[in-house]
Amino acid sequence: MLEKTIAHIEELDHRAQKEAQNRLDNLTKPPGSLGKLEKIVVQLAGITGKVLPEVNNKTHIVMVADHGIVEEGVSAFPQNVTQKMVKNFINGGAAINVLSEQIGADLKVVDIGMKSDVPNKEVLSRKVKRGTDNFARGPAMSKKEALTALETGIEITQKCINQGCNLIGTGEMGIGNTSPSSAILAALTDFDLQEIVGPGTGLDPEKVKQKAEIIARGLEVNQPDPHEALDVLAKVGGLEIAGMAGCMLGAAAGRTPVLIDGFISGAAALIAYKLEPGVSDYLIPSHISAEPGHIKIYELLGLNPYLDLEMRLGEGTGAVLAMGIVESATKIIREMATFSEAGIKK
Amino acid sequence: MLEKTIAHIEELDHRAQKEAQNRLDNLTKPPGSLGKLEKIVVQLAGITGKVLPEVNNKTHIVMVADHGIVEEGVSAFPQNVTQKMVKNFINGGAAINVLSEQIGADLKVVDIGMKSDVPNKEVLSRKVKRGTDNFARGPAMSKKEALTALETGIEITQKCINQGCNLIGTGEMGIGNTSPSSAILAALTDFDLQEIVGPGTGLDPEKVKQKAEIIARGLEVNQPDPHEALDVLAKVGGLEIAGMAGCMLGAAAGRTPVLIDGFISGAAALIAYKLEPGVSDYLIPSHISAEPGHIKIYELLGLNPYLDLEMRLGEGTGAVLAMGIVESATKIIREMATFSEAGIKK
Repeated sequence: MLEKTIAHIEELDHRAQKEAQNRLDNLTKPPGSLGKLEKIVVQLAGITGKVLPEVNNKTHIVMVADHGIVEEGVSAFPQNVTQKMVKNFINGGAAINVLSEQIGADLKVVDIGMKSDVPNKEVLSRKVKRGTDNFARGPAMSKKEALTALETGIEITQKCINQGCNLIGTGEMGIGNTSPSSAILAALTDFDLQEIVGPGTGLDPEKVKQKAEIIARGLEVNQPDPHEALDVLAKVGGLEIAGMAGCMLGAAAGRTPVLIDGFISGAAALIAYKLEPGVSDYLIPSHISAEPGHIKIYELLGLNPYLDLEMRLGEGTGAVLAMGIVESATKIIREMATFSEAGIKK
Repeated sequence: MLEKTIAHIEELDHRAQKEAQNRLDNLTKPPGSLGKLEKIVVQLAGITGKVLPEVNNKTHIVMVADHGIVEEGVSAFPQNVTQKMVKNFINGGAAINVLSEQIGADLKVVDIGMKSDVPNKEVLSRKVKRGTDNFARGPAMSKKEALTALETGIEITQKCINQGCNLIGTGEMGIGNTSPSSAILAALTDFDLQEIVGPGTGLDPEKVKQKAEIIARGLEVNQPDPHEALDVLAKVGGLEIAGMAGCMLGAAAGRTPVLIDGFISGAAALIAYKLEPGVSDYLIPSHISAEPGHIKIYELLGLNPYLDLEMRLGEGTGAVLAMGIVESATKIIREMATFSEAGIKK
């Protein structure tokens, strides 16, 4: 299924992009004056093949999982906060509830690897494993488990697209998940861990140093193969990271734009990109997170984030905030008058 | 009236700000993790005196005027485009129509100084003068006219606030208006004109150089007093710039947040700030425009813009885009659960 999905990721529709740019240049505004909004329109035209792309059915997918590495003391919050936050999602009290409601996005919470269960109709139960194992002592999961989590993301996304969704957000909840994200980035690149390990939900500098040492030990113990993304994902990754990478590949195969959120969703994007570089054309960057490794991921993907709000909450909060910007872009090309319609000579 | 308005601009409510910050720190998220959204909440609490500030009645004011300086060839578009764009506003075809509609802001178009008339119920006719005079040859307007335009902005804003508006956007339309904006910035600061004169709606580099020379001539001819904002505004400013400055002062006096848009609205903010420095606490920066002088204005005001979308369209398009972000911030503090409500120990 992964291979089939990757085979379906095609080039953008350059004809639609050219026509969209041509229409943008004829709208009643100085040419190019809507800056990055115009860039978004052209990207969406290329993705969808439509000169007038539309966003009217938004889904935000929050992948939830636990991390064995937490037993090493890498997080400011205890592991059971993952479960408690899922209950908070169900009750509508989290930041992602508030922002999804505001923008009108359908919120999908997926248990792809929580340690405990939260049985509720609001939570899609697709648990691959009860949390990863502690990657400081051995692989986080098997390759088969990583693949299953990836394919779960693909399947959920395909279903959304089949139901008419035309913009997908990716987010996560999983206490400890900046550690596997940093490990993935370090394993796939030459960056020094000191540069890319940050405070996560709020570690002090001393603890950040310890966190970097623990991640270094995990990389040493596991020896992930930098040329094989699935090996890296299995050995030092996370189930929600795999799920989000699957969402991105599934969205690209289904010619649907998909938003990256922060550092963890960025690590997922990097995995997806290493599996199939063509996926990056389908990714829309949202915000730049305060976590230090995030900007480096954007550079590797060749993307520039649209929002710089110093956010570092996760859940996909930045992705959902950016949905409004993406929607604005589509409304611009669909609803603005052209110079000739307004009787203005260019 | 101007003096009375300025006398009404008070300090922010520090008690409300402290209480809002306290509530933010107890919401179900890592402390500080919503970054600049939290900063907006605290500012709004200080402005309104409410710990749970609300944005549910948004007005965007577009001030429209013409500029005598256009006869010197400083703009890529002919002067009558001002009038044609106002007709476009009436017909709902401009970028600002699309974005205001999306965010649910009431759009108010004010003729504060157009050369010609566009009689229509959608246009508020408050013409102070039929366009400014060419400031390369003498003063753009009299001090009395500048004061009247300022007070018009104050009055319109006060009326909005009395009708329940709790967020105000400022924007403009006026072919040629980056020239008076650059002139204001140069007159009030030590910046070199070469640094702060840009392409506006699309001049080539050679024409930008000529534009800077013409503005330099205007400053030489008029000798505006850098210590008297009203003198600068009258001699080298514009009627829509005066109107927007009035909106900002009126909003501050009415304890209502007001959004700055791009370079021209930034020049208006600078005038308002020079008249009363306390106004800056009430200003919300929106985006950073591609026009080179804009960032310098933000620095002078001590503000950091939230969006960097390389936009340079005007009309207040950046301000209206940022309304969504401001609204998100208020919803966060009003609707998110606290840790104790979610049963999570911090």
